[in-house]
Amino acid sequence: MSADGAGDGATDGFGLDHLPYGVFSRDGGPRRVGARLGDRVVDLAEATGRPELATASLHALMALGPAVWAETREQVRDLAATGVAPSHDLADVVLHLPFEVADLVDFYASEHHATRVAEILRPGQDPLPPQWRHLPVGYHGRAGTVVVSGTPVVRPRGQGRPSREEPDRPAFGPTRRLDLEAELGFVVGVPSALGSTVGVDALVDHVFGVVGVNDWSARDLQAWEYVPLGPMLGKSFATSVSAWVTPLAALDAAWCDLPGQEPAPLPHLRHADGSTPQGLDVRVEVEVAGTVVSRPSYATTYWAPAQMLAHLTSNGAALRTGDLLASGTISGPGDDERGCLLELTRGGQVEVAGRGFLEDGDEVVLRYSAPSTSGGRITLGEVRGTVAPAAG
Amino acid sequence: MSADGAGDGATDGFGLDHLPYGVFSRDGGPRRVGARLGDRVVDLAEATGRPELATASLHALMALGPAVWAETREQVRDLAATGVAPSHDLADVVLHLPFEVADLVDFYASEHHATRVAEILRPGQDPLPPQWRHLPVGYHGRAGTVVVSGTPVVRPRGQGRPSREEPDRPAFGPTRRLDLEAELGFVVGVPSALGSTVGVDALVDHVFGVVGVNDWSARDLQAWEYVPLGPMLGKSFATSVSAWVTPLAALDAAWCDLPGQEPAPLPHLRHADGSTPQGLDVRVEVEVAGTVVSRPSYATTYWAPAQMLAHLTSNGAALRTGDLLASGTISGPGDDERGCLLELTRGGQVEVAGRGFLEDGDEVVLRYSAPSTSGGRITLGEVRGTVAPAAG
Repeated sequence: MSADGAGDGATDGFGLDHLPYGVFSRDGGPRRVGARLGDRVVDLAEATGRPELATASLHALMALGPAVWAETREQVRDLAATGVAPSHDLADVVLHLPFEVADLVDFYASEHHATRVAEILRPGQDPLPPQWRHLPVGYHGRAGTVVVSGTPVVRPRGQGRPSREEPDRPAFGPTRRLDLEAELGFVVGVPSALGSTVGVDALVDHVFGVVGVNDWSARDLQAWEYVPLGPMLGKSFATSVSAWVTPLAALDAAWCDLPGQEPAPLPHLRHADGSTPQGLDVRVEVEVAGTVVSRPSYATTYWAPAQMLAHLTSNGAALRTGDLLASGTISGPGDDERGCLLELTRGGQVEVAGRGFLEDGDEVVLRYSAPSTSGGRITLGEVRGTVAPAAG
Repeated sequence: MSADGAGDGATDGFGLDHLPYGVFSRDGGPRRVGARLGDRVVDLAEATGRPELATASLHALMALGPAVWAETREQVRDLAATGVAPSHDLADVVLHLPFEVADLVDFYASEHHATRVAEILRPGQDPLPPQWRHLPVGYHGRAGTVVVSGTPVVRPRGQGRPSREEPDRPAFGPTRRLDLEAELGFVVGVPSALGSTVGVDALVDHVFGVVGVNDWSARDLQAWEYVPLGPMLGKSFATSVSAWVTPLAALDAAWCDLPGQEPAPLPHLRHADGSTPQGLDVRVEVEVAGTVVSRPSYATTYWAPAQMLAHLTSNGAALRTGDLLASGTISGPGDDERGCLLELTRGGQVEVAGRGFLEDGDEVVLRYSAPSTSGGRITLGEVRGTVAPAAG
């Protein structure tokens, strides 16, 4: 461990105030749980001797709950601070999906995103459906196609609306409207029992940490398929997540009031005193093919993560270790705070970074940062992916 | 093993021509893989010595593919036929979820169901959305709340449309429109790689077997939430599956031509010779609180299972062992072939078995049968569930 790595809050947002967890391997060897400090990866099984860390995924640690998470974090910090813990250069390891995704739920929690998308796709209709301000709208995505940052994303083929030339036959081919969606994901650690609910106060009892999420979307496939049962193949080909899971404790200083909810949501989506749960002041940067195209903030989101969790379980649905709750596209009010190309290009009407939607070879990078408990900022795990041409 | 159990095609549809797989335990002991013969459960780990059967779920066997499935089935049949295989009375065992559900996809493959539902819920609009005859519409459900037959289903609470008395505030409480949906589920054994497709000819290479499915639905929750991202809490509280997985080989005699598809679907949803894939002649019986209310047939379905699989993977989405593809409600053309109470009661306008929607204490039983390779009929695993009152 280099001396550099031990500075509190130093090392580009990966200091001792952060210590996100991930899964790595070296030279084709077995997967191991690690923590990132600067550009080093601490081997946690070796460093801590904890059995829940001597595994090939974060699942075991995630399932153990807040008391063990806090104790583990303290032990990892102490070890990392000494600079003697066994570690590897980040450049020498391969990073893997850090946990097995159980169910993937993608919400639609940004009012700015939902409103702009409706204006682009359903002009003349009410911008928000009638339930939108009463519950955080969401749907289940495909857990089996969640991939780790760095995995190439093959341009999907699929059906789109019939063209004017062939009005009786849907189009079929590689998507022409491949998009990114910059999102934040909440990773469930502690499960809940079928038939029980998880209140807004219980987020910290269940959520282990957060990841960056790119919810890749094929807008032409989605437009053709989504009425009445929602998005399916327009989304299911890939969802990228960061390799690093930031423990919730590293975001203690990032909680912030959200813009406000009017009308007040039903009681189960509020605290006992009537207040609404807080959000996180996470800033996002969206880069496409080397150009930063947007800088939205998760602090502008309408629905709070605790409300997503409470709504999801309000019908008694169980949580499992590995459930991933994604925020939906993070978009702020400004034109430079649009979290997807559909919004940035006004539905493909204007170019952004010289393109409408994503082109083959484009690399998309999502970067995230948040206030740190040490007064600086931490850098959450980035989400990186390059578009590969459609297969065969 | 009783002599009764050895008769080919005998024993109420659970003869040697069937031999479905399941997972059982005895006296609180560990879970074991078994096969059902009559009212006996053969202990397959003990009987066969196969390592893939010495596990607590069907996952390992399912992942091995058609050659091993055929070989295993032959070995199990030989053992069962001798009557000397170690076995237990069905009454003495507890049956468990037979496999870990990876992703749950629920289709909407019955034209009769889709048309009637649209006429009830969206009168005056086109009964089918424009893409419906071009692709099998489906959406992802909640894999984590799939439960085995016999598990009580707690009436979910949730938000519904505001009432006339309180137009500015959604209703909240136990669902008043709890429904069943009689479906057939296809269980994926062999995974596919991300970025590849699975053609209509490859169903037998990937699908291990079928289960009965009750896709419980809270119609009032669903109506309020489902535009634009599809069903969510109206479905996610529970989905019941049969304890027995019928191997695809036991359905060899059940393949049948479907009613026909017009217009012809795109090439990737047809065989190379232009023909459309077959469906299964599975008859379903729906019983509510002791009264049989419907007898639909899966043979009347519009979209074939091979088309559901081909569509699902047409964008390169990977399959995993344990993926469950459900047909959607099975409804035929006749009034006595409606596979859910929404259809049977015309949206709650008329009573069926003395009720509109499901009442607390109602037991729902779905029964399935199909032509057998021995000339008789096999009985697929039933799906049973009793409605428990809303919690707290």
